[in-house]
Amino acid sequence: MIDLYTFTTPNGRKASIMLEEVGLPYNVHKIDITKGEQFTPEFMAINPNSKIPAIVDRESNITVFESGAILIYLAEKTGKLLPTDTKNRFQVLEWLMFQMGSVGPMFGQLNHFKNFAPSKIDYAIARYEKETLRLYSVLDTQLANQEFICGNYSIADIATYPWVAIYEFQGLTLDNHPNLKRWVETMQQRPAVQEGMKVPS
Amino acid sequence: MIDLYTFTTPNGRKASIMLEEVGLPYNVHKIDITKGEQFTPEFMAINPNSKIPAIVDRESNITVFESGAILIYLAEKTGKLLPTDTKNRFQVLEWLMFQMGSVGPMFGQLNHFKNFAPSKIDYAIARYEKETLRLYSVLDTQLANQEFICGNYSIADIATYPWVAIYEFQGLTLDNHPNLKRWVETMQQRPAVQEGMKVPS
Repeated sequence: MIDLYTFTTPNGRKASIMLEEVGLPYNVHKIDITKGEQFTPEFMAINPNSKIPAIVDRESNITVFESGAILIYLAEKTGKLLPTDTKNRFQVLEWLMFQMGSVGPMFGQLNHFKNFAPSKIDYAIARYEKETLRLYSVLDTQLANQEFICGNYSIADIATYPWVAIYEFQGLTLDNHPNLKRWVETMQQRPAVQEGMKVPS
Repeated sequence: MIDLYTFTTPNGRKASIMLEEVGLPYNVHKIDITKGEQFTPEFMAINPNSKIPAIVDRESNITVFESGAILIYLAEKTGKLLPTDTKNRFQVLEWLMFQMGSVGPMFGQLNHFKNFAPSKIDYAIARYEKETLRLYSVLDTQLANQEFICGNYSIADIATYPWVAIYEFQGLTLDNHPNLKRWVETMQQRPAVQEGMKVPS
């Protein structure tokens, strides 16, 4: 059994989609970050960086935080969604890192300045909107001739989807990125994605 | 032989420090991002996201971009600096992801707003300075009872060092984070770190 500590954010949803895809049973522990529950001593013993998601695998007694590491852990545990041959494996890992290092942080800053900052700072909104659209274009090009980011469905898709799926919340459209739009629609049809996006209820 | 495409940035230095540590021979290709050399068709064929660093391993004919993926690739190729037992391996991978998803992007935004933005935006500078200091504290706590981030020296240290090392450029001090300061001094004494930080010349 896997204990999943999560909340209703894109990073949290990566873990729940993955657990649904690989079919491992899991218990959901909702950590309400709007109430500061990520700062309790109990949770900080699991993740000293006080961020969701985190998992505890009760079978191996291994704790993993950071969504990118959780995806690799669950992929290796189940032998699913991460190729084992070196060339294809590193293609998935580089696109996973692209999501971790650029898509997540930059889309997250756009969210902050567009939806949460106490005042509208035009320079910051323009900076992160421009970078988000640039990253949309990189993904759109990557998806021009293949169904998923690395050809076959992988943890690179699972990592990226919850961040692209919030485009309306970010005041953006995918209409200028037709391959990315098609990929979002493909992802939305997967039952595991639908279930994972509802976690935590 | 490894071809390394890099520039004088923290992300670039992760790759050169790692190559020095594992002792693999490599050719340096300087990609001057201040002149837009990351946007040439030749370089974008290596990394469609137009970012350094990237490597081409001429032995396996495998290309890897994203510094975090490069560190894992070189660690696995040489059997160095990434433990093979699951528990310790995932501790290193989670701290590597912590660097990729938080330390790099957030310190990078502080750099931008403090040193490069056309005007001083107090709110943005305060936002990223606060987060940088919070991340310093997370690292300081992690280093309280051990020499390196995950106990033994690993790719988590190599990923994190070039970003912490620029603290003076960011107008910050490590004096309030004594464990982190001691770790920086330990890292600075490593010959491979000294050599890697000079690349590209």
